[in-house]
Order: sequence, then structure tokens, then C-alpha cells
Amino acid sequence: METIKIGILGYGNLGRGVECAIAQNPDMKLVGVFTRRDPASVTIRTPGVPVLPAEALEKGLDIDVLVLCGGSATDLPAQTPHYAALYNVIDSFDNHSHIPQHFAAVDAAAKAAGKVATISTGWDPGLFSLMRCVAASSLPQGENYTFWGKGVSQGHSDAIRRIPGVVDARQYTIPVERALAMVRSGVNPTLTTREKHKRECFVVAEEGADLAAIEREIVTMPAYFADYDTTVHFISLEELRRDHSGIPHGGFVIRSGKTGAHGENTELMEFRLKLDSNPEFTASVIASYARATYRMAQKGETGCKTILDIPVAYASPLSGEALRKSLL
Amino acid sequence: METIKIGILGYGNLGRGVECAIAQNPDMKLVGVFTRRDPASVTIRTPGVPVLPAEALEKGLDIDVLVLCGGSATDLPAQTPHYAALYNVIDSFDNHSHIPQHFAAVDAAAKAAGKVATISTGWDPGLFSLMRCVAASSLPQGENYTFWGKGVSQGHSDAIRRIPGVVDARQYTIPVERALAMVRSGVNPTLTTREKHKRECFVVAEEGADLAAIEREIVTMPAYFADYDTTVHFISLEELRRDHSGIPHGGFVIRSGKTGAHGENTELMEFRLKLDSNPEFTASVIASYARATYRMAQKGETGCKTILDIPVAYASPLSGEALRKSLL
Repeated sequence: METIKIGILGYGNLGRGVECAIAQNPDMKLVGVFTRRDPASVTIRTPGVPVLPAEALEKGLDIDVLVLCGGSATDLPAQTPHYAALYNVIDSFDNHSHIPQHFAAVDAAAKAAGKVATISTGWDPGLFSLMRCVAASSLPQGENYTFWGKGVSQGHSDAIRRIPGVVDARQYTIPVERALAMVRSGVNPTLTTREKHKRECFVVAEEGADLAAIEREIVTMPAYFADYDTTVHFISLEELRRDHSGIPHGGFVIRSGKTGAHGENTELMEFRLKLDSNPEFTASVIASYARATYRMAQKGETGCKTILDIPVAYASPLSGEALRKSLL
Repeated sequence: METIKIGILGYGNLGRGVECAIAQNPDMKLVGVFTRRDPASVTIRTPGVPVLPAEALEKGLDIDVLVLCGGSATDLPAQTPHYAALYNVIDSFDNHSHIPQHFAAVDAAAKAAGKVATISTGWDPGLFSLMRCVAASSLPQGENYTFWGKGVSQGHSDAIRRIPGVVDARQYTIPVERALAMVRSGVNPTLTTREKHKRECFVVAEEGADLAAIEREIVTMPAYFADYDTTVHFISLEELRRDHSGIPHGGFVIRSGKTGAHGENTELMEFRLKLDSNPEFTASVIASYARATYRMAQKGETGCKTILDIPVAYASPLSGEALRKSLL
């Protein structure tokens, strides 16, 4: 079996998840973790693998695919085009509205260098995109719906933490059951923001803080909470640590559409994820598409790719023959 | 917009469904329906489209993709290799254990002729295969489960109809809720045939027939019913026609797997279909992959393909740019 040599740039939750995912894939080998921190301060799990400064990547190391584990706000817009000029790369850029410009920048760099760069991999964008595309293609007379949760939103949790008097907080995004039921019924409803998702907040307040004021500030916060039905629970730090330390997430992509000569039949497609660990699952999907990135490079392809452009067989460790025999 | 010229061979439930699906896709045009019956006996829905004898296809007509709507038992094993030598073709060959040999025969014919042949398209094999592949690649430490139903099994309904004293019958395959719940819980159970699916039969008996004998013959029938918990309901012909005339189907592909350094987290992926019309939905998927077949031919690809080998973007009417902007 050929072994795919993987490098990881960035060793946060996602980078650690990619390290775990590589260990589950016998055809992959972690060859280095690269960091902008002091490498001496970073301890990784895999024995015998060096932690090196990000600058070491400039030399052009023997890496088949470099997995970029930075954030979408500021890291990846610069990193992905930069490293696509040196390596085959994969990222999880998830700023949906900026994907076209990210694609253009990465495509130009990768094509000029003869490399393959796979962007926006994970579950949304990623597997959810795959499902939205397949569903829309299968049922042209229909509507796509995406629901997120139940899951932790880091951005919303951070917004609560910035309120004076708040020690710590955890925010869950939750699909509204009534909306899911309406969509599944095939009526293709028009749903407002409030009708689709609700928000539940677990907040640790300082001793003596004005809880009513904190709650009011949360539920009226523009963009983050004002457009949602929001519930606030005040709990102790011990309870937060005990009951809300995980990073669960998930969601639903649902499409219902009409078929038949007069649209008389309703067909429902639903894809659901229920994840104990958002970053570990994202990392697992990235690992499988790192394999696909390697395969495309082996075939001489170049430029920027997304999950929509890649045959799913490329993400599998199995041969086409084995897939047809065992799984098709 | 370019228009894809589609031919349909075989005008049963599936062929009629493909005709309806083409009408929902503005970039496709039905150019002919081909039949082994007397063309004068076949009336189609689309105005101005000729119904021609199957032999007319031998001349090499102006068709971009020929959709083969025959059965998997005897039609497609002969038809798909034969017509792949003349046209780009697509079929819904669903005899899972014979896919490797079907692939080999079709691949040889299509490659020799410089054509593209997409086989085993629909929902299982088809979308369910896509999901099984993506799920297995994303979660290497996990297990795939496929459940079918609630839906009508034509083969099982036919088996009941062959019992003396039976006028007509309809058989539903139904997933066992307890099995679904166990799989969703993440325990990756080993399930017997009986534990996964149950069978429900609606039977119209002749006046004065021995109902107990018919029921016994059904529930003990080897391969078809003996390994399942089977319920038999005797109803009138009127009830059968009123309540059981549809061809619903559906099912579930579920995979749960472990992530993390010690497999401490469980991640669940579930894909569900709930279909009013099995043949119309199958036909809708086929139509979208007829588009993909055309695209591959335009790119100069040749040979046999399955849904696992084809980027999902090829099945979409949207450009890569539009997909990245609106759907990724």
C-alpha cells in the first residue's frame, strides 16, 4: 500500500483532530506538525513526529498533502494561496460568502505551481454541500433546507462572554422541531430565522451580578440573538464544566420535491449528522479528502477543487473494484 | 444553454418516470422513445416525440445519452454493453452481486466505442452507494447499515400472487424501529435479517379460499418470508386498489463511528429517503446522471462509470461558479 505523507499546519482543536484521523487511516502517515507558536511549547500525540516552525515549510519538504488547520477569518485567506504554491493542500475554509474569492486566489496559485488545492472541506461546507448538490440535482422541483444543531456555536458563546458580569458561557444552536416537521411534510414552507432555529445559553455570572440585566443584554443582542427565541440559564462554573465541556454539533439537510407528470408525488431526502465532536468529525472528513487530493495530484490534475468536483471514490481507501464489489 | 438530447429505451414505470424527469430539466430534450413492443401500441406523454421500434437505434441516431429502462434480470446484462457500443448510455442495473461482471462487459464495449456508460444509477445502487462510500471514508472506525422501506417489494408481492387462491397482493418491507434505534445509538450492533426488517402483506383471496393455509404458505416461504416476522392481512380487492395502489419506497443509510485519540467520541451520519413513487424518484436521479454522462463524454472520457466515479457537480445544471456561490 502506498503511504500518503501528511503535514499539519496549526495545532488547535482541528489540528489535533486531523492527527487522530490520520492514525485511523493506515495509508496515511503524519510527517510533521507545523506551528507559528514556539515548537518547544507544543506537545503532540504521535510518537517520533517532529514539531517544526511554520517557516520550515518554505523549504519545500517531502509532504504529499499539507492540511491547513487555521481559521477562516484571517489565517486561511492568506495561508491557502501561499502554501498552494508549495504543496498540495487542503483547508476547511467555511466563510460561505467569501468562497468564490478564496477559490479564485487558491486556484491561481495552485495552477501556477502545478499543485492541487482542495478548499472548504468538512461538513458545512463539505458533506452538507455534497448533499445539497445531489438533492437539488435529483429533485429540480423542490427546495433545499439546512438546519444546524443541536450544537455549540463558538461565536455566540464568545459574544455572551464579552458581557460585563459574565464569567463563562456556552451557547447551543437548536433546530426548531416544528420547522423540521413542516419541511419533512413536503410543503416547502418559507421560514424566518426565528422559525428555523432557537438558541439556548448556559451562563456563569459573577457573584452579585445583575442576572436580569445580563439576560436582557443577551436576548436583545442584534444579529446574534435578537432574531431568535433565546433561553438563558444561569448555572455554576462547576455545572458548566461538568455538563457543557464538549463540542457537539450536527444538523440536517432536507429537500423535498415533486415528481410525476403533474407533480403529484412527493419525494423526501434527508441527511443528518449528530456529532459528539465537531472538530474531530470535521478533521475526519478532511483526512479522507486529503487522500482525494493526493489521488488528484497523482493523476496530474492541478488547481482548486471543492467536494463537488471530486468523485467520492477518491476519498475512499478502497479501489474502484473493491468499492463496486462491496459497497455500490 | 446547450440542450442534451435524450432517448429512452423501454416505456414501463421507469421509462415513464424518465420522461417526466426530462420535462423538469430545461437543459434536456426527449428525442425519442424506443420500444420492443409495437410502437403503435405505445402512447407517450410528450407531444411531438416519436415512438420507434428498438431496432431503429441500430442506425446510430442523433442522441446524446440513451437511457436504458429495462430490467436487471435479463434486459440490461445484454442491452447495456450492446448500446454502449453505439451511444453514451445510462442504466439502473440493481443486481448488486453481478455489478462487477456487468461493469466489465459495459466498460469493454464503451471503451472500444469511445463512449461513456454510467451504470447502476438510482437510489440503491445509486444515492445510497454514494452515502455508504462517503460515510465509510469519513469514519473509518465505524459500520455501515442500510435499511429499506417502508416500501413495496414487487418481487415479494409477485411471490404471494403465485400462491393458489390468491387474487392479488401487495407486500411492504418495513425497517424494524428497534434496530434503527440501536444503530442510531452508536453501539454498532450485529443484526440478523429478522431483526432488521419486517414484512407486511395485504392479500386478496378468492371467495371461499382457505385463508389459514394461504397465510401459512406466505409466512413459511423460504428466502422470501421465512426469515422475517411477517404479518398477513386479508382485504378486499376494492381496499387493495384504494389503499395500496402506489409504489412508495425509501430507506436509511446510517453509519456511526468513533473519533478521538481513544475513540471516545461517537459521530452519527444518517441519510434517509421517503418516496411516494420509487420509479419516479429513481428516474429523477437517472436524469441528473444522464447530464453527468453527457458532461463526461464532452470532456472526452470513455468507459464505464458509477456514481462513485463522478463528481456530483456534473449532475447539476449549475456551473461550478454558480454552485460555489449558491450552494457550497
